Amino acid sequence: MADRTSPPPRPESAPTRSWWGWGASDRALSDAECASLAALVPGATEAALPVPAVASLELPPVRVSAPAALARLLSSAPADRAAHTYGKAFRDVVRALYGEMAAAPDLVARPRDERDVVDLLDWAAGAGVAVVPYGAGSSVVGGVEYRAGNHRGVLSLDLSRLDRVLEIDRVSRAALIQAGALGPGLESQLRPHGLTLRHFPQSFAFSTLGGWLATRAGGHYATLHTHIDDLVESLRVVTPTGVSQSLRVPGSGAGPSPDRLFLGSEGTLGIITEAWMRLQDRPSHKASASVVFERFPDAVDTVRAIAQSGLHPANCRLLDPGEAALSGVASGGGGSVLVLGVESAHGPVDGRLAELVALARDHGGSPAERSSASGDSASGDSAATAWRSAFLRMPYIRDGLARMSVISETFETACTWDRFPELYEAAHREVGAAVKKVTGASGLVNCRFTHVYPDGPATYFTVIAPGRRGAEVAMWDEIKAAAMETLGKQGATVTHHHAVGRDHRPGYDRQRPEPFALALRAAKQALDPAGILNPGVLFDAPTV
Amino acid sequence: MADRTSPPPRPESAPTRSWWGWGASDRALSDAECASLAALVPGATEAALPVPAVASLELPPVRVSAPAALARLLSSAPADRAAHTYGKAFRDVVRALYGEMAAAPDLVARPRDERDVVDLLDWAAGAGVAVVPYGAGSSVVGGVEYRAGNHRGVLSLDLSRLDRVLEIDRVSRAALIQAGALGPGLESQLRPHGLTLRHFPQSFAFSTLGGWLATRAGGHYATLHTHIDDLVESLRVVTPTGVSQSLRVPGSGAGPSPDRLFLGSEGTLGIITEAWMRLQDRPSHKASASVVFERFPDAVDTVRAIAQSGLHPANCRLLDPGEAALSGVASGGGGSVLVLGVESAHGPVDGRLAELVALARDHGGSPAERSSASGDSASGDSAATAWRSAFLRMPYIRDGLARMSVISETFETACTWDRFPELYEAAHREVGAAVKKVTGASGLVNCRFTHVYPDGPATYFTVIAPGRRGAEVAMWDEIKAAAMETLGKQGATVTHHHAVGRDHRPGYDRQRPEPFALALRAAKQALDPAGILNPGVLFDAPTV
Repeated sequence: MADRTSPPPRPESAPTRSWWGWGASDRALSDAECASLAALVPGATEAALPVPAVASLELPPVRVSAPAALARLLSSAPADRAAHTYGKAFRDVVRALYGEMAAAPDLVARPRDERDVVDLLDWAAGAGVAVVPYGAGSSVVGGVEYRAGNHRGVLSLDLSRLDRVLEIDRVSRAALIQAGALGPGLESQLRPHGLTLRHFPQSFAFSTLGGWLATRAGGHYATLHTHIDDLVESLRVVTPTGVSQSLRVPGSGAGPSPDRLFLGSEGTLGIITEAWMRLQDRPSHKASASVVFERFPDAVDTVRAIAQSGLHPANCRLLDPGEAALSGVASGGGGSVLVLGVESAHGPVDGRLAELVALARDHGGSPAERSSASGDSASGDSAATAWRSAFLRMPYIRDGLARMSVISETFETACTWDRFPELYEAAHREVGAAVKKVTGASGLVNCRFTHVYPDGPATYFTVIAPGRRGAEVAMWDEIKAAAMETLGKQGATVTHHHAVGRDHRPGYDRQRPEPFALALRAAKQALDPAGILNPGVLFDAPTV
Repeated sequence: MADRTSPPPRPESAPTRSWWGWGASDRALSDAECASLAALVPGATEAALPVPAVASLELPPVRVSAPAALARLLSSAPADRAAHTYGKAFRDVVRALYGEMAAAPDLVARPRDERDVVDLLDWAAGAGVAVVPYGAGSSVVGGVEYRAGNHRGVLSLDLSRLDRVLEIDRVSRAALIQAGALGPGLESQLRPHGLTLRHFPQSFAFSTLGGWLATRAGGHYATLHTHIDDLVESLRVVTPTGVSQSLRVPGSGAGPSPDRLFLGSEGTLGIITEAWMRLQDRPSHKASASVVFERFPDAVDTVRAIAQSGLHPANCRLLDPGEAALSGVASGGGGSVLVLGVESAHGPVDGRLAELVALARDHGGSPAERSSASGDSASGDSAATAWRSAFLRMPYIRDGLARMSVISETFETACTWDRFPELYEAAHREVGAAVKKVTGASGLVNCRFTHVYPDGPATYFTVIAPGRRGAEVAMWDEIKAAAMETLGKQGATVTHHHAVGRDHRPGYDRQRPEPFALALRAAKQALDPAGILNPGVLFDAPTV
């Protein structure tokens, strides 16, 4: 039987969140660091954009007020409104730096329980106020930014008070977790039980369980259980027409899956408030290795062989030559680098790693580094640590580059193996041409695999190029449009794990089968007849 | 790039399908075999119900006729109508034996291509004719039996002519397969390419890809990829409002999954005509073992440990003492039997099997048998072969028992591990009491695990008890209602892989979250406004 847990320890010194940029304020780059970074980008500007003080921001007037009974849940403080205006895409950060705050929500709501969420939706539906679920605001696709323009007001819904692990079923290895829990907070509540959700997106520290579920986030595992979808036992969702609670079972064939309708619904069909999640035992054995390839196609063949081998490595990240150089894990010889990791809670994994390395060698790879560790404190090895550290630092560097008006952004996709070589070529050729046309510089278009499947890779592209001050957003938008055009032509998805939001709507609309769109719009109308939930995401905003 | 395949070899001597019972006519039990089987069931009748000749059946008059352009696709021959009246549940077989044919469809359609399917749906929607997708008719939940009563006619849609593997992508290990392909037919088309779908439900030879997809069938793998859902890359679905073609990608986070809406929709939202399916390399190494346990709870603990170990055995079937005795795989000591199987296309699996057996021994199991084989002809070992043979023979025995008026049926479910002990006790106690009340005899209530997950088992119950001639269906319905009541009370799903159909509607309706039901009904209305698709399944039939 499941145990109700006692109230959790408060997270150890939660960081102060940056209102304008990624993550923790105290980790943002200094002006000097920004400048030295930009020195590496030919054509970059020389002075960093200043970070405006919140007090200096011009926020639009608050247009709505809620009944007194809800007042204690609501804030219209400028700092709250500013911090809840945008996600954390390059274009969000740049607009924040320029103090463009027209999209600021009127109110920020922090409900304490499900009843509060119900009351807030009831009020909003009656008042014609849009409700934009915020998660922890790390959307990079315009998922938390209101743009529809015709609601009577906008409420940003922040579930940060719903951050508890409520119940743990040790025997089934599952827990009931509130949707507002941040990665570190939920892991710290699971740790005393020897359990872990082991879902570590790049945004881990600054995103919530509810956000992961609503956007079908990609996580730690490079193979097998890549999306959070597979870790879900059941969901509890507050919709404007009632609370949906799915049956908590390990598997079912009873009709279309209710959970799969809400997974990926990005706050348009309801507010996920709780989920029973499948957990893992904490891994006690880890091993990792890196392998260098002179020829990128050999590396791709290796990864395909690994993905089809049934060996299921936890990490299997391939960096193309440009990305390897950028990440500081290149060998110096300009090759591609494959980072492999294996882990287990049950026994040694060195044999499995040896099989993976042998596969890589068979395909022309040169093993560069290998290490293993066991015991509960297993912290991995230097290659994995270097990679992870660069990976977590990257968004702060992106913000530093943004302050130097350097375009620094990513797009990601997935396609089947048969299409990958052409996609890779086309992305470099076409997005490279767009970068050249827009910026006049060659810039960088790098590629890595973040997750791999037996039938194809999830591919992540990084674009870096000098921008012109004041035109950064328009320039990126033009490059991004070229990228979306390329993905569409290549039959690759507009997003593997960044969600659709508002930014990917054109490409998404083209790829979504029209009968499914009909069905989904009908479902939306049934659950949210007033059209208040995250208008503009997945669906056109209603004309209110 | 994917290759278009050449037309397939016709299946080697397709068996003649039984119109009234399971599978191939020539494998049905003789009268003498029926009688000797029934001798094992105390209280059974002594004479076998005769199998009526099709010519003797009283079929209701055909009420509708289609336009001439569709006539070549349609049959109103009594043999076709009789064979398409029911699925293959115990209650279906018994009613066929009694010649109860009131539910016979007016017409059976065998479209040759997608265009035909579109034309048939267009005509049916205009004419108020219900369309019941037949698959290959092995539904055991009333999924193919029209009961609504208020349509102007009923068309049984049989896709048996759409049985080709159209395209193979060897590099991504995927194939585009038509929905009417039966298991053996699609495997024989994949075999020359060294590939296999490796989806082997008990009904493998008598069910179709489209049926598996529409019902979220459970397959070969006891762990990891248990449902066919995970093997789907993309679906093509003809709905009354248009053709839905999802993007063929290995993974995506672009909104709620379109495929997951149609998976499990049981023909109520559209007709699945083609699917890109993920394939496997043909396994070249197999090993299996059986382990006997004196105490059933030890066996359950073992299976849980295995399911949570990450070892992913292909087979992990646990038979409780009654089921082990019934299947002929018991050791004689009355214990529970765990059948384990491991397979790989890449290398030896004996090490993995040894780990599994060691786990079982640690939990009090006694390894009884173990064998391994390698090479492409690897056919497994005696324990696995004995199990598989009994497994495939079982439905014919069920039919033989039905002819002796012996109630012989199953129900299946899934629940989390924390709830399993109570579910097991409750099912034996409450369903056993219902058997006693209804039949006056003790009967058998046996249990096995068909699939297992880290968070719980899929549990399959077999019920055998003597029935009264003429009252078999009513008696089973009463027992089944008790079983559904038990599952509901225990928080276990009404079906893990048999689908909802019409028989599981009451339990399904209670377990389906009401907001999701609202959304799904809206989707149904959008895709099938005339309410012609499989009325009564998942949704109440419209009042036409």
